[in-house]
Amino acid sequence: YSLAEKLPNVSPPNIIIMLMDDMGWGDLGVLGQPSKETPNLDEMAAQGMLFTNFYTANPLCSPSRAALLTGRLPVRNGFYTTNAHARNAFTPQEIVGGISKDEILLPQMLKKKGYVSKIVGKWHLGHRPQFLPLKNGFDEWFGSPNCHFGPFNSSFRPNIPVYNNSEMLGRYFEDFKINLKTGESNLTQMYLTEGLDFISRQAEAKQPFFLYWAADATHAPVYASKPFLGKSQRGRYGDAVMELDYSVGQILDKLQCLGIEENTFVFFTSDNGAALMSGPMEGGSNGPFLCGKETTFEGGMREPAIAWWPGHIKEGEVSLQPANVMDLFTTSLALAGIDPPDDRILDGLDLTPVLLNLSEKLENRPTFYYRGNELMAVRVGPYKAHYWTWSNSWEELKSGINFCPGEEVPGVTTHNQTEHTMQPLIFNLGRDPGEKYPLNVLSKEYQETLRRISPVVQEHQKTLTPGMPQLNMCDLAVMNWAPAGCEKLGKCLQPPESKPWKCSWPH
Amino acid sequence: YSLAEKLPNVSPPNIIIMLMDDMGWGDLGVLGQPSKETPNLDEMAAQGMLFTNFYTANPLCSPSRAALLTGRLPVRNGFYTTNAHARNAFTPQEIVGGISKDEILLPQMLKKKGYVSKIVGKWHLGHRPQFLPLKNGFDEWFGSPNCHFGPFNSSFRPNIPVYNNSEMLGRYFEDFKINLKTGESNLTQMYLTEGLDFISRQAEAKQPFFLYWAADATHAPVYASKPFLGKSQRGRYGDAVMELDYSVGQILDKLQCLGIEENTFVFFTSDNGAALMSGPMEGGSNGPFLCGKETTFEGGMREPAIAWWPGHIKEGEVSLQPANVMDLFTTSLALAGIDPPDDRILDGLDLTPVLLNLSEKLENRPTFYYRGNELMAVRVGPYKAHYWTWSNSWEELKSGINFCPGEEVPGVTTHNQTEHTMQPLIFNLGRDPGEKYPLNVLSKEYQETLRRISPVVQEHQKTLTPGMPQLNMCDLAVMNWAPAGCEKLGKCLQPPESKPWKCSWPH
Ligand SMILES: [Ca+2]
Ligand SMILES: [Ca+2]
Repeated sequence: YSLAEKLPNVSPPNIIIMLMDDMGWGDLGVLGQPSKETPNLDEMAAQGMLFTNFYTANPLCSPSRAALLTGRLPVRNGFYTTNAHARNAFTPQEIVGGISKDEILLPQMLKKKGYVSKIVGKWHLGHRPQFLPLKNGFDEWFGSPNCHFGPFNSSFRPNIPVYNNSEMLGRYFEDFKINLKTGESNLTQMYLTEGLDFISRQAEAKQPFFLYWAADATHAPVYASKPFLGKSQRGRYGDAVMELDYSVGQILDKLQCLGIEENTFVFFTSDNGAALMSGPMEGGSNGPFLCGKETTFEGGMREPAIAWWPGHIKEGEVSLQPANVMDLFTTSLALAGIDPPDDRILDGLDLTPVLLNLSEKLENRPTFYYRGNELMAVRVGPYKAHYWTWSNSWEELKSGINFCPGEEVPGVTTHNQTEHTMQPLIFNLGRDPGEKYPLNVLSKEYQETLRRISPVVQEHQKTLTPGMPQLNMCDLAVMNWAPAGCEKLGKCLQPPESKPWKCSWPH
Repeated sequence: YSLAEKLPNVSPPNIIIMLMDDMGWGDLGVLGQPSKETPNLDEMAAQGMLFTNFYTANPLCSPSRAALLTGRLPVRNGFYTTNAHARNAFTPQEIVGGISKDEILLPQMLKKKGYVSKIVGKWHLGHRPQFLPLKNGFDEWFGSPNCHFGPFNSSFRPNIPVYNNSEMLGRYFEDFKINLKTGESNLTQMYLTEGLDFISRQAEAKQPFFLYWAADATHAPVYASKPFLGKSQRGRYGDAVMELDYSVGQILDKLQCLGIEENTFVFFTSDNGAALMSGPMEGGSNGPFLCGKETTFEGGMREPAIAWWPGHIKEGEVSLQPANVMDLFTTSLALAGIDPPDDRILDGLDLTPVLLNLSEKLENRPTFYYRGNELMAVRVGPYKAHYWTWSNSWEELKSGINFCPGEEVPGVTTHNQTEHTMQPLIFNLGRDPGEKYPLNVLSKEYQETLRRISPVVQEHQKTLTPGMPQLNMCDLAVMNWAPAGCEKLGKCLQPPESKPWKCSWPH
């Protein structure tokens, strides 16, 4: 399949993926946030196609981002752990691993057609030198390898570096301020400027580009710049959303101002559901969906998603097509007229038939909900079958960590890992998007659905070859003590002796 | 205040209030229903003003409707019970009472300016002869005095009549079919036809009109006509929503086709939150809000609400103004240029300044959440204080009736009536619309909010004179045995001997 064949007069468009961090489905006005504070995103949806059944591949940052950039499930691309069953793993500073050199990332593929690629914002696919963006296909980078946690004291733990391309520019809380008390930071402004500059430069050079705009202001600790602080009805989290919404508007305006909007495909989404355990001050909304980040309920994995491409995508469309961040890999290749890699299994589909109304929707496309090494649930059509359920452990819950605050569906939001493989819990997400009413196992609907889903799961599991897990080992010696460029800045720190251990992933 | 003074060139517009039955805030696409199946309502919002903080005056049918038509809280207009504390009461067939003759209803007031008024659909303010619409200001009626429950066997309980004006036309399940198995019924079609006919006749007569379009297809047992059955992603409930959405579109189209859209004020809302105890097959969605019908949590009382008046209300506006069904009474009078009654307290405000962007919003307007004779909660600004909490009793819960399925906020969704008057639970609905995170009572925010809300509550309670409760007595003899017109149809039934008792209201 080649888009060029079907649309011969379309030249490969620029591609912009705007990936939010922990923003929830319900944070957009157009998706029911009562405060309706996202006029630019709502307008983007009105001018483009809104996906209401769009998913991430994993309910937390690192594996979700690895899936987006490889088009493959984390269990294939290695962004998971086998240290314990069904555990969420990511890339904190002490992680030894990162994106495998055997994986092919989207910017690497796009080079075949001369695309220049830039990532602005959070990387999160490993922070050791070989794992960084410029070693993995990106031509430019402004941002950070890890979350903006801190401040740290520099002896037991270094502050997270901010990079410009292959060298650090400084560190969070030292050179890049985040005021934890007031919530003030100019980072979103910087990310916006970096994005706009890149777009302008590429437009001037008349060179196709891929901009991966990965701002992280809605990840706790949430932040916003002064003009936005205190502006939201929703507190500081809402301020961050408003600044991101403003930034999205600025980026779309820039494309229009440069006259390249009809040659730029833009996609907006988020890496995982809202972090309800940080709510309400620093967590967003998952609308009508159950639970949030870290879980394989809809609140953890269903994402806001808007495609925008004036002149190509019809205005004001709503698509119910089940789609996925991994589709952005495959779809981007199709748009660029590049054949996807044929030496590996891809989980992403090409969404261009849906985007361009070229054909029927891809109705039966399954959605797989993984937590670490376990397939927790599967969606086929409107039906979702849970093979395993878990919110978090009783121990964590008792310590105050709650992924489902105010919600409790008996036998569903379990605090033990609960196996249902012999008799999965099945929900009809059409009439029960909140996963509150499991189908009666004796009903005809249940039996028919199980007969429909079971072969999909069997086929998936039979053919699945898990990748080498990259998120098993931790070591204090690998932290961001002395990133490239630290010498010039006098910012190098002395790493401790290497003492690797198997990382502990509590949920 | 007179609108005519402020807008001298506006003649009193026609008024259409479209009141849904048990439709939830989250059932509209524009308010975040993932299936996005309400294109006409979404378009109505795009052409008008969407209220995201709009409330009913009571979380169930009868008192909500009595409040809308009188502009007064049920505790004032008598639509409540004192048989037990904080109980929801309505007008089943065995109710003796109904709307008090001392109340003044909107159509009675509108007569002063020559309006002709019609109610299409469900009345629910009492079914005994003196309580019916044509005795209370309406000129025309097509519909039913009670809910479309049934079928009944005619010896212990008559089927509910359907009236045309002051005489019955037949009975549900006998002459007006509702197929409980398939969900098929043509009632919404009939209500649509009745509404359209009335509009056309009034337009032709060039006489101002008030149409109160009170379709009830989303009240269990939900129904839709054949063309809509099976069309929704959401099952039968969604089919009913789609047919109502279609009907709304037809009504707005008719106004435009007749060229009277700039002289017709249309308001769409619902009488109470979605009935979660009937979900997911026969209940809707309250979006991100807590619990549903019968409760004073946001899910029970926050309603979808759209104002539409081309040429007067700016397109695509969103108002965060806390507003209420009771405001429709006061606002309608203002639009008609009629002074409101000055011999009684009105709880409704005139929303025209908000609708027409004439002034600042009415920020500090309190919202009172009553359950029966008890003030359960108050909202002032973004803050809501609960003085009493109750979902339903343990007994009811154990019998399978659940007003908050899948939701449990400790100490909030209580199954005992729990008093918090000494230390109310306070939520910030801006950042916590789902009422999941009560403010810490030791926080400055809690203390300041309490100081702001307490005098509002004291003033309200000090000045409140409860009306005579109308919903205390029941009697099998008062049921719809022999409605006016039954003789002609051979549909009269023999009432049993009168044996009144104090109605039992379990929740
Ligand atoms: Ca994230
Ligand atoms: Ca109702």
